[in-house]
Amino acid sequence: MEGEPEVRVVRLGHRPGRDDRMTTHVGLTARALGADRVVLPEAAGHAAETVREVTGRFGGPFAVETVSSPERAVERWDGLVAHLTMYGEPVEDVIDGVREARAEAPLLVVVGAAKVSFDVYEAADWNVAVTNQPHSEVAALAVFLDRLFEGRELDRDWRDAERRVVPQAAGKRVEPADGAEPGE
Amino acid sequence: MEGEPEVRVVRLGHRPGRDDRMTTHVGLTARALGADRVVLPEAAGHAAETVREVTGRFGGPFAVETVSSPERAVERWDGLVAHLTMYGEPVEDVIDGVREARAEAPLLVVVGAAKVSFDVYEAADWNVAVTNQPHSEVAALAVFLDRLFEGRELDRDWRDAERRVVPQAAGKRVEPADGAEPGE
Repeated sequence: MEGEPEVRVVRLGHRPGRDDRMTTHVGLTARALGADRVVLPEAAGHAAETVREVTGRFGGPFAVETVSSPERAVERWDGLVAHLTMYGEPVEDVIDGVREARAEAPLLVVVGAAKVSFDVYEAADWNVAVTNQPHSEVAALAVFLDRLFEGRELDRDWRDAERRVVPQAAGKRVEPADGAEPGE
Repeated sequence: MEGEPEVRVVRLGHRPGRDDRMTTHVGLTARALGADRVVLPEAAGHAAETVREVTGRFGGPFAVETVSSPERAVERWDGLVAHLTMYGEPVEDVIDGVREARAEAPLLVVVGAAKVSFDVYEAADWNVAVTNQPHSEVAALAVFLDRLFEGRELDRDWRDAERRVVPQAAGKRVEPADGAEPGE
């Protein structure tokens, strides 16, 4: 979030076709839950485009980057690394340490897919498990970010949005972001 | 979780093929993060099978049900209903009320997809937004459950598991669930 050391999310192991929607959801979750940037493999160009479109409509700042090798982006990162994996240490045990360290330095959050090289486990300052049960990289990222930011991400301000959703007890209300005219 | 009023997750609007993996992740996230049962549409039979397999390997109790109409499962539910939607009220404002009510009565958590009928908004006791930003039904479910259970779901016990993951600072360790022999 703005005025704080960067939180960047990198997605490893994207399989074109099969992983398109999961990678899109990784990118959208990173944006919605307080990260500053997502790094996706070039093969996930469609996912990158969707996240950019959402940022255009609903605001930022949020950056979407595509790279030829996300693994190399991990190697070259000069900062803290938290790797989300069901084999890691419990998030409830490590999150306070991550939060404290990240107050002083940027943090790369590594989200894997099918196979993650052992180098990533070694490069990580923390291998973090959101339960040691198999579930979803999107769910793990969401819980990790919500606990990292302690809920502050939920009332983040969005700039340069075209529209915004107005919370409703029932139904849907969307307004132009300047609030001038009622929308849907 | 056991010894408490049931938390059941129902997935609406599954589109076969396109939504298979997302629906699988909804089911796995429901299981890993403390729900007791997931209700999926019959068209998501492959997703249901995957969640049952994971429950067989990593333990339960967790029930997977397929129904011809998840919408009807919402109508017929005798208990509380929380519908996750980006158009709803902020999770941080409503979650304490949900938790308090659910201490006395079972809770159905409704997870939508593309289009959700207005009847669902009306049937819900709470329409809940995990941010009013578009992101992921899996991420929304994960944050909702983690906040509902206040992290208690993370150290849930699993019964009848064939194997369990042993948390590691780096690397992977999987053991037979009885702890007798090391596996991988």
